[in-house]
Amino acid sequence: MGNTKYSFKNDYSELAHADIIDEIVKADSLQYEGYGDDVYCLRAAEMIKAQIQREDADIHFVTGGTQANLLAISSFLRPHESVIAVATGHIAVHETGAIESTGHKVNTIAGKNGKVTVSDIQQVLDTHTDEHMVKPRLVFVSNSTEVGTVYTKAELTAISNFCKSHDLLLYLDGARLGVALTSAHNDLTLPDLAALTDAFYIGGTKNGAMLGEAIVILNPALKSDFRFFIKQKGALLAKGSLIGIQFCRLFQGGLYFDLASHANQMAEKLADGIARLGYAFLAPCETNQIFPILPDRVIAELQKKYDFYRWSRVDTQNSAARLVTSWATEETAVDAFLGDLDENSHSQ
Amino acid sequence: MGNTKYSFKNDYSELAHADIIDEIVKADSLQYEGYGDDVYCLRAAEMIKAQIQREDADIHFVTGGTQANLLAISSFLRPHESVIAVATGHIAVHETGAIESTGHKVNTIAGKNGKVTVSDIQQVLDTHTDEHMVKPRLVFVSNSTEVGTVYTKAELTAISNFCKSHDLLLYLDGARLGVALTSAHNDLTLPDLAALTDAFYIGGTKNGAMLGEAIVILNPALKSDFRFFIKQKGALLAKGSLIGIQFCRLFQGGLYFDLASHANQMAEKLADGIARLGYAFLAPCETNQIFPILPDRVIAELQKKYDFYRWSRVDTQNSAARLVTSWATEETAVDAFLGDLDENSHSQ
Amino acid sequence: MGNTKYSFKNDYSELAHADIIDEIVKADSLQYEGYGDDVYCLRAAEMIKAQIQREDADIHFVTGGTQANLLAISSFLRPHESVIAVATGHIAVHETGAIESTGHKVNTIAGKNGKVTVSDIQQVLDTHTDEHMVKPRLVFVSNSTEVGTVYTKAELTAISNFCKSHDLLLYLDGARLGVALTSAHNDLTLPDLAALTDAFYIGGTKNGAMLGEAIVILNPALKSDFRFFIKQKGALLAKGSLIGIQFCRLFQGGLYFDLASHANQMAEKLADGIARLGYAFLAPCETNQIFPILPDRVIAELQKKYDFYRWSRVDTQNSAARLVTSWATEETAVDAFLGDLDENSHSQ
Amino acid sequence: MGNTKYSFKNDYSELAHADIIDEIVKADSLQYEGYGDDVYCLRAAEMIKAQIQREDADIHFVTGGTQANLLAISSFLRPHESVIAVATGHIAVHETGAIESTGHKVNTIAGKNGKVTVSDIQQVLDTHTDEHMVKPRLVFVSNSTEVGTVYTKAELTAISNFCKSHDLLLYLDGARLGVALTSAHNDLTLPDLAALTDAFYIGGTKNGAMLGEAIVILNPALKSDFRFFIKQKGALLAKGSLIGIQFCRLFQGGLYFDLASHANQMAEKLADGIARLGYAFLAPCETNQIFPILPDRVIAELQKKYDFYRWSRVDTQNSAARLVTSWATEETAVDAFLGDLDENSHSQ
Repeated sequence: MGNTKYSFKNDYSELAHADIIDEIVKADSLQYEGYGDDVYCLRAAEMIKAQIQREDADIHFVTGGTQANLLAISSFLRPHESVIAVATGHIAVHETGAIESTGHKVNTIAGKNGKVTVSDIQQVLDTHTDEHMVKPRLVFVSNSTEVGTVYTKAELTAISNFCKSHDLLLYLDGARLGVALTSAHNDLTLPDLAALTDAFYIGGTKNGAMLGEAIVILNPALKSDFRFFIKQKGALLAKGSLIGIQFCRLFQGGLYFDLASHANQMAEKLADGIARLGYAFLAPCETNQIFPILPDRVIAELQKKYDFYRWSRVDTQNSAARLVTSWATEETAVDAFLGDLDENSHSQ
Repeated sequence: MGNTKYSFKNDYSELAHADIIDEIVKADSLQYEGYGDDVYCLRAAEMIKAQIQREDADIHFVTGGTQANLLAISSFLRPHESVIAVATGHIAVHETGAIESTGHKVNTIAGKNGKVTVSDIQQVLDTHTDEHMVKPRLVFVSNSTEVGTVYTKAELTAISNFCKSHDLLLYLDGARLGVALTSAHNDLTLPDLAALTDAFYIGGTKNGAMLGEAIVILNPALKSDFRFFIKQKGALLAKGSLIGIQFCRLFQGGLYFDLASHANQMAEKLADGIARLGYAFLAPCETNQIFPILPDRVIAELQKKYDFYRWSRVDTQNSAARLVTSWATEETAVDAFLGDLDENSHSQ
Repeated sequence: MGNTKYSFKNDYSELAHADIIDEIVKADSLQYEGYGDDVYCLRAAEMIKAQIQREDADIHFVTGGTQANLLAISSFLRPHESVIAVATGHIAVHETGAIESTGHKVNTIAGKNGKVTVSDIQQVLDTHTDEHMVKPRLVFVSNSTEVGTVYTKAELTAISNFCKSHDLLLYLDGARLGVALTSAHNDLTLPDLAALTDAFYIGGTKNGAMLGEAIVILNPALKSDFRFFIKQKGALLAKGSLIGIQFCRLFQGGLYFDLASHANQMAEKLADGIARLGYAFLAPCETNQIFPILPDRVIAELQKKYDFYRWSRVDTQNSAARLVTSWATEETAVDAFLGDLDENSHSQ
Repeated sequence: MGNTKYSFKNDYSELAHADIIDEIVKADSLQYEGYGDDVYCLRAAEMIKAQIQREDADIHFVTGGTQANLLAISSFLRPHESVIAVATGHIAVHETGAIESTGHKVNTIAGKNGKVTVSDIQQVLDTHTDEHMVKPRLVFVSNSTEVGTVYTKAELTAISNFCKSHDLLLYLDGARLGVALTSAHNDLTLPDLAALTDAFYIGGTKNGAMLGEAIVILNPALKSDFRFFIKQKGALLAKGSLIGIQFCRLFQGGLYFDLASHANQMAEKLADGIARLGYAFLAPCETNQIFPILPDRVIAELQKKYDFYRWSRVDTQNSAARLVTSWATEETAVDAFLGDLDENSHSQ
């Protein structure tokens, strides 16, 4: 029933890591409280608080990233307040106007390598000065970003400090937080994130879980009544334990980091191999998404055997492709892809 | 890790029926398309179309009932249009204003035994006559209802005919459709529902699935761009196959109906036993939710061993309890409950 | 160009009191700041603060009552919070779902003579207990009410005290505040209102102005950024001075109260005359809206000469009519109406 | 009570043209139907239909431009559909997120001289290809634009044709339509606008009226239930005749065009004088808003005597000023300003 071509299209092609499935099978014989009040959700929340070293955090489990973003933002902001995000940001392009659907404008900025900079934020503040304009109130960052890059501790600290001194909230979309924190280019930790942001979420769907994201709220002013929002937006699972079970497993024995590390290693191998063949990249290769610039002819040949996106046109004969690896990516598939790329690069 | 008391609190205490878990385990080795474009979702949609005998229907899978309701209603209505629902209706009370959150008023009516009547609808139309009031546009019914009753074919046909002749849409919330269609009091079929409504949903969560509801859109005018709404409201699962797999299994070999029948049989046994002990009920016992009226003292005793809701006060010494059975309810638990009720009824 | 029949249909049939028109004519030769920052708006705000004896109040001028209500409520509440209002309340019926359009549910209660009671509020609180339901947060009252009655100081104080002790906001719709405060049945003052509510508005449109309502915010927690809401909802007039000029005139020399008193006197004369003819009323006659119960035949005859609403059917042969007087109602018209009623009552 | 400095800050500093005030004074002795059903609104609608040569058009009167825009757009679009506008567009910047507040994203494009181009629109369509992104559905143009330029008939026709062939709606914001249609650079007529757009509005506030914009809906598919939206958004004036009276006067004897012509003549005189002193402009001077580039020192001197905005910085020593003329601008004020500019340009 599965795909016929090997897929480097995304990091959610496989259902779930076998250990997670096992955990669900094991849990399926008892009765649990509904709506996330079960023992698994409670335990998973405790495990996450330990990981981030913040006993005071509020943890909520939801099914997906767009849902996490719209819940957090619509709960944190008043109707006239806006979000600042890079123009390539997921909420700015790929969430079908989910944020605007809750009434909030997204002020887009250019950014650099997919990352927000302090000067970008300053520019938005400079041009929003009175009640004829929205009031910028929350800075949205993703780690890793839409182009696979990661924030350094210095970069995120600068943004965090700027936000604190300008009455702005800092929210981090961690759909791909696993690969960010296990990137060779990373120097941030989960406790750092908890210290630098007002809220963030830890993505499960793209790192081995069937579904599930853990929203972490640090700022006490943002905590009240969050479950009302989860219910109102249709995001409160009757069988919340389904997500709790998975997060318990992910944070037991470091599975979460192991899975992400594997994705990064496969991406690194892929990137190294491609670079050795002489190709350049659209953005630095730092996590499990890489963007090699390849001749259109080569892309067409490779797409006969592999699923992946042609990302953007570079010139009349070359485009950037997007290749994504995951916890499930097989090394043999990487080798095969590199072999096919090598072969197609030489033939004419 | 599970509950310590046996629960008659709801029909979503257990994670999923073993056959469904098995199906997920079997599927977990391949790659699938994302966002519900996988082979399982496509096959499940075909199976549902066959069940309702409507090849032209659009089928969409989402994670829960509140989500299904808010997606359908916000997609079907223009901003000034309202929903008509009974005052006890799930959208009127127990969805944290999800419908209003999308901008639409819910006009509540009294109803009868939890069911909408034509005269109720007529009354709303009579009092909404111009642009100073909302424009009633969609009638919301649940089958089974919030008090466990079911619509007869005659009742639903009358509502459907009235809607058609008054330019009203008819939408049916089928969170508990399984127990409705397998009730001893039912004479409706899935093809009937498809013929009588503009859209409805088939609930999986409360009938053996981990999560999942199948939205069925019949009216061609309501079909366009529905996936934009699913994405915008944060309801598009990256790994949509998770729900597709479950619905494939539910509609294979009649499992969906078998599970619901079991729930009804357990409820009937419970209701018969309670009635034999001389107790009355708040509403007719027609599906898996029953509402016996019991002395407060007896309720307090029973709640030491069983989880269930005290539903509403009847007089100074008696209250209605809500007892819910499910596909997973054990007959021994029913027997035990009846035995304990008998014992507590005699003791003083 | 005007109506051909004399109208008792509402209190906004005439454009504006002559003194107000004069004031506008006088002002029309100079340049003013835009958006309500002009000298008239500033002066009118000071005059209102003096009237309510609250220098700390925030005053905002908008064009109409529905606008005032939706601005206040959408600014004061978070998305999951609801409004409590009587079922006959303007926001519950006659504002086309304006409140729901901003995302908030209106919890309706029965009330008594159009007025909210503490026990009504308590009942809503009792049935809204967790995150599966909206969170009631603001009590909406109108003075005078939709059926022309007024709150006594004791009644409003009881509601205010209850709200304070239950973390509820109290908001008063003063579309017809003039006739309420000058009613023979009134014992409330503007300073009382300022002390008892969190916010209210003083209606100009129905008391002699072309257009204009003055929103008064007392609770400091509700003040911030209100002008963002006014702009965002399309309610910020470029030429805000138009409303400022009118409120300056209304609160100069007590014109506001004089106009309202006239409306009440005309209503009282009308009510007394009707009562003398032996007719009963649907609700107590306390301000400028009265609801005599008349034979349908008589209503039909009177409607040939006068404009007014048939309000509701009382029995097969009698209906309640709604007669509204205003600052502009001519005593000769009242006399003529009573004469015609007398004549039609005797003829058969 | 008025301003102390002469204002070139905007075109809404004066309350209303004397002829309009006169008309209101004359009307103020009769009773009228409420909510825009009065004889003046009906007559004004007929006059506008005659002007645009479209008897089938629907005409609605509202109080301001942001209100007109949010009403039209929220009525015309489904929740997942977006608006395309230039980045400098009023809805994109200066309406406090009013459009997003109704749930719709605004896709901004660069434009040219404040005007939308077909290639801009094409680019948005190219990057919005499936349900993960909003669905662009309406093109928003302003005439005159935010930088005072006007669309030629060829430009608007090209956009209109593109929209028709790509299932896009074309909506024109005519807050300053008077100065656009009487510009020396204009070749469009009101009937042209009616033929080329799906809807547009004719601005009164910035062209001599106290308040009032006339929304014109041409596309039959967009007409239904528009009054429900007007009421729901708090935009339905009880005394709608106030706007009807003004539009009757504006379109009687060509006053609307005379007032706009005066504004343009004053701007042209101002622009010519400034150009003769050797200064350049930020954008072509085509209507009543001009943007001369002046030394900061000169701007500071002029602002001691005149009110106007410093618009944007050009280099370290020069900025663009925005000077706005209106129907009320006195030629002596223009002469005085030019004299002062001349003097300040020479002094050091």
